[in-house]
Amino acid sequence: MCELLGMDCNTPTDIVFSFTGLARRGGATGPHADGWGLAFFDGPAARVFLDPHPCAKSPLSGFLQAHPIKTMQAIAHIRRKTRGRVRLANTHPFVRELWGRHWVFAHNGTVKGAKALKLSGRFTPVGQTDSEHAYCWLLDRITEKFRSMPKDRERLAKHIATSAGALAEHGTFNFLLGDGEWLFARCDTRLWHIVRKAPFGQAALKDDELTVDFSEVTTPRDRVAIVATQPLTSNERWTRGEPATLWVFHKGALVGTHKSGAPSAKALRILAKEASERHSASK
Amino acid sequence: MCELLGMDCNTPTDIVFSFTGLARRGGATGPHADGWGLAFFDGPAARVFLDPHPCAKSPLSGFLQAHPIKTMQAIAHIRRKTRGRVRLANTHPFVRELWGRHWVFAHNGTVKGAKALKLSGRFTPVGQTDSEHAYCWLLDRITEKFRSMPKDRERLAKHIATSAGALAEHGTFNFLLGDGEWLFARCDTRLWHIVRKAPFGQAALKDDELTVDFSEVTTPRDRVAIVATQPLTSNERWTRGEPATLWVFHKGALVGTHKSGAPSAKALRILAKEASERHSASK
Repeated sequence: MCELLGMDCNTPTDIVFSFTGLARRGGATGPHADGWGLAFFDGPAARVFLDPHPCAKSPLSGFLQAHPIKTMQAIAHIRRKTRGRVRLANTHPFVRELWGRHWVFAHNGTVKGAKALKLSGRFTPVGQTDSEHAYCWLLDRITEKFRSMPKDRERLAKHIATSAGALAEHGTFNFLLGDGEWLFARCDTRLWHIVRKAPFGQAALKDDELTVDFSEVTTPRDRVAIVATQPLTSNERWTRGEPATLWVFHKGALVGTHKSGAPSAKALRILAKEASERHSASK
Repeated sequence: MCELLGMDCNTPTDIVFSFTGLARRGGATGPHADGWGLAFFDGPAARVFLDPHPCAKSPLSGFLQAHPIKTMQAIAHIRRKTRGRVRLANTHPFVRELWGRHWVFAHNGTVKGAKALKLSGRFTPVGQTDSEHAYCWLLDRITEKFRSMPKDRERLAKHIATSAGALAEHGTFNFLLGDGEWLFARCDTRLWHIVRKAPFGQAALKDDELTVDFSEVTTPRDRVAIVATQPLTSNERWTRGEPATLWVFHKGALVGTHKSGAPSAKALRILAKEASERHSASK
C-alpha cells in the first residue's frame, strides 16, 4: 500500500508543509520506503521528481523541501510496494500527454486483475505495476469516449467515475488524476480532503514537529484543497471520502462528487471494523 | 539556439563531468540562459529534471552535480530561446511514451515551418516550441510505419533519418532522440562525438577548471559515447558530424551512420565560412 497527496489551488502555492508530513511516512514514521514521486504543474506541463529510494532519507526530497516550487496543482505518492519491484519505472506518479496537456496519475491499493485488461496500444505501461496498467486502461476509456477535451468537464468527470468504478471491481482503486486544472480523486477505501480558505489559521503536522500559520502566508482570496490518504494535520477538520466516489477539485474548491461503481468489500470491511471500534470505545 | 549533450554507455556512468561543462554555458561562459533539462534513463524509464531558469545559477543543477546519478543513457539541453517563451512547457528535453518505453528528445536549431505540419493527434505539443511540434510529427512518422518496436533497429534508424531529413527542409534540425537503449543523433549544422574506451586518459573541460582522469573511475571494458553541439574538452579528439547525417549509438559505440536528407543551406554556409577561415589562417 502507498500514500497519496494531492493539492489543487486558485493561486500558486508551495506544497512543502504537506509534503514534509508525507515524506516522514516514507521510511521514518511510516513504512512506505519503496520510492516516492512528486509532480508539479506549471500550466499544462508537469515536472515530476521521482526517486526509487525512501522519501524520509532522500537527498532529492530534502532539496525539494528546501527549494519550494509554487504550483496550482501537485500530486505526490510514497510507495510501499505490493506489485512490481523497486525501480524507477514502477515509481508513481505516472505521466502521459493527452490533448496537449500532461496527465499525472498516482494510485493507492492493488488492482492485480487489472493487468489482464486489454490495452489499445496507444498507452502502454513502462513498468510492471498494476497501477500503471490501470492508468493506461483508464486513458483508453477516456480517449475512446472523447476525441478532445470536452468543454463540459462534468461529462469527463462522470465518465472517469464510471470507468474507474468498473476497474475497481479488480481490487482497491484509490487514486489521484490531474491535468493541472482539474484534480480527480477517487476514494475506494481511504481518502480525505480539506479546503483551506480565509479565515486561515494554524495547522500542526501529525508526523513532524512542524506548525504553520497559514494566515501569514496567504491572502484572503486564496483557496487550497488538499487530498490525502490520511489526514496530515492533527488540529484541522478533514472530510472523509465515501467509498466508491470521485471528488473533482478545481481552483482549490470541491466542485463535484460523483458515484464511481460500488463500494468494495474491503472498504465495507474497514468501515464495519471502525464502527465496531467506535461502539466498543463508547461503551 | 541551444546546446545538446547526449551520453550512451555500456555500463552505468554518471554524466557530471560533461554536464558541468555544459552547465557553465547556461548563463556563465555561454548565453544559453533560458532553461535547461537533463534526462536519465533507468531501463525503459526516464526521469527528467527540468528548470526554466539559467543552468549556471540553478540550485537544481548544482544538486545534480553534487548527487551523481549513474545511467546507461542521458540527454541534456540548455536553451537559448528562439521560439516560444521561457516556461516549463517549452523546456527540453521532451518525453513521450511509445511501445512501453520513454522516448526523450532535445533539439538544437529552429524549424519554424514545422508548426504548419499536420499532426495525427496521438502526440500533441504541450508547449509552444517548433521543437516539440517537430518531435510529435517525427513520432507520428514512426508510429505510422511501425506498430511496435522493429527487431531490426537499422530499419528504425533509416526511417528516422529519412523522416528527419524531410522535416529539416523547414529549418535547422540538429537533435538527440533516445529510448534508453539506442541514441539517435542528427547533425544538421553542428554536432560532435567522442567514444571513450580503454586505455582511458585525462580529459580537461573547456568551460571550467576541471580535469578528470577516466582511468581512475573506469574498468577496461567500459565504453562511453558522448555527443555534443560543441566539443566539451580541450585535450581529446572529437569527431565532427557531416551535415545531414544521423548517428546511431548503442552500448557506448557508434553502430551506424545514415544519410538524413540534404545538407541545409545554413550548414553549407558554416562549412564554407570555416574553410575560408582556415585558408586565411594558413596564408
